[in-house]
Amino acid sequence: MRGYMVATWKMAWDGVKKGQEVLRAGGSVHQAIIEAVKMVEDDPEYHSVGYGGLPNYNGEVELDAAYMDGDTLGYGGIMGVKNLKNPIEVAFDLCHYKRNCLLAAAGAEEYARKKGYAFCDMLTEEAYLRYSRQTKQMDMEKLEAYGGHDTVCVIGKSGDTMACGVSTSGLFMKLPGRVGDSPVIGSGCYADSEVGAAAATGVGEDIMKGCLSFSVVEKLRQGVPVQQACETALREHMERLGRSGHRPGSISLIAMDREHNIGAATNKKAFPFVVGDLERNTVLYAAVNEGGKMSVICPDEAWIQAYQGD
Amino acid sequence: MRGYMVATWKMAWDGVKKGQEVLRAGGSVHQAIIEAVKMVEDDPEYHSVGYGGLPNYNGEVELDAAYMDGDTLGYGGIMGVKNLKNPIEVAFDLCHYKRNCLLAAAGAEEYARKKGYAFCDMLTEEAYLRYSRQTKQMDMEKLEAYGGHDTVCVIGKSGDTMACGVSTSGLFMKLPGRVGDSPVIGSGCYADSEVGAAAATGVGEDIMKGCLSFSVVEKLRQGVPVQQACETALREHMERLGRSGHRPGSISLIAMDREHNIGAATNKKAFPFVVGDLERNTVLYAAVNEGGKMSVICPDEAWIQAYQGD
Repeated sequence: MRGYMVATWKMAWDGVKKGQEVLRAGGSVHQAIIEAVKMVEDDPEYHSVGYGGLPNYNGEVELDAAYMDGDTLGYGGIMGVKNLKNPIEVAFDLCHYKRNCLLAAAGAEEYARKKGYAFCDMLTEEAYLRYSRQTKQMDMEKLEAYGGHDTVCVIGKSGDTMACGVSTSGLFMKLPGRVGDSPVIGSGCYADSEVGAAAATGVGEDIMKGCLSFSVVEKLRQGVPVQQACETALREHMERLGRSGHRPGSISLIAMDREHNIGAATNKKAFPFVVGDLERNTVLYAAVNEGGKMSVICPDEAWIQAYQGD
Repeated sequence: MRGYMVATWKMAWDGVKKGQEVLRAGGSVHQAIIEAVKMVEDDPEYHSVGYGGLPNYNGEVELDAAYMDGDTLGYGGIMGVKNLKNPIEVAFDLCHYKRNCLLAAAGAEEYARKKGYAFCDMLTEEAYLRYSRQTKQMDMEKLEAYGGHDTVCVIGKSGDTMACGVSTSGLFMKLPGRVGDSPVIGSGCYADSEVGAAAATGVGEDIMKGCLSFSVVEKLRQGVPVQQACETALREHMERLGRSGHRPGSISLIAMDREHNIGAATNKKAFPFVVGDLERNTVLYAAVNEGGKMSVICPDEAWIQAYQGD
């Protein structure tokens, strides 16, 4: 499985298709990734990213995003930002600086406003309805990534340049100010053009405990093949958490090495992801986990119909 | 060099001494670390941590802290928090939860208020005077960690348990909302009782690009001796940044393995750190970097007098 782009979840299909067009038209890998992420951010149908994202415990949509340029290791991230139309644009903007690259909450909003990025109300009526129906008597210790889709992560490679962008509204009903793995370098994503890139989706608190994106890229650096790097990083982390008595929430990983080889792994039963392949096609795959044994399938219509989620 | 505790900078001396007393009296490693960090937070003489910390570009003191329990990999962090007396206490509190462990800005403050943690004005007159004398026409791309001291990081081990706590006010004149490496797991600190713990101080943006604390602990996991793990992680990262044309700011590392062995490295000329040794003494050491060749010395009075900083 090889490609120019790989992205988490079926919801990234239109975005990867657009990204592939950007690359074919001679655009940079950065433009391709930004366009791909923005398509998911702008779509109110996806309740875990950007516009239409599900709100926190106080009913506010708080957004996280990050971008890493694998050539420079330039990293930009924003955390807990409200009413920003396209968080990925600001994360990308910040990755060009040497200082003040990771900004939280009001400070990030102040920066985005000064730079002229668009703001709008990100809470849709549908997301508000879902929030208002949610009981507040829930167990905050059992919050899960939203079933079937979660953070959008897009990895791309063009020429020698690798990069990665991620965007999310985080866990539904999270505490105000809660930050997950997405804007945390090495956890939500990591890219090094000399080696490869990886990104994660799922319960951020559990992903962060293993710095899983950095962990996958380090295995690539040691020469481990990309599919094995994803599976091993995830398995070792699950085993380590198991020894401490902790049963982690859902975690899924994607990665690409510098030869365009793609890997994926999940601790869920199935994890769909989208590849923009070397023939310029956009193809849906799924990592399927049968009792710890991982396989990657190219699902047929029946599988897709049966799959609950985006 | 072996010990129960190791901490960044000479300013941690009193804290480590107190932490050693806590351990000797049968207190937990967590109590020892919290007490050690709090002593630095509470001292207005130290302008890079807690009370008396130097403010951001808008004249506000914004504090970051994190705590990691190496037994559970439980991680708590707060970012960009104002007027909180002891950030390390809230970070430690959060490390006990499975969700909502990393909180930013107003959300973190809301959490701390609800849990009854003390708030007070953290901007001292001296810090304000220094701020008011600072020209705002500075190059934001050249902000440096405050000369001679920076983030306080304390690693401890008692019984089989290893843990780490860090606290900082971040870069002087940082943009509002700017977050450095300190509250970012794997960058500012990382602890795994099965392997070891590491922590970093310096320019957060450059530390984060290499997830340096996680990187050191991964080398320990592979059996690399702790001093070599610190030196190699730092050297490889400097070389990688050098290949991308980036000249990083100051970076210093401390680490301890599960046999109580301690290591340290720096890309500055000298980096003082404090060890609570196995004989219950509190001892100042310094990592000295002569053209890339690292040595650890036990400095004499003359060296300490000549050293500019805390």
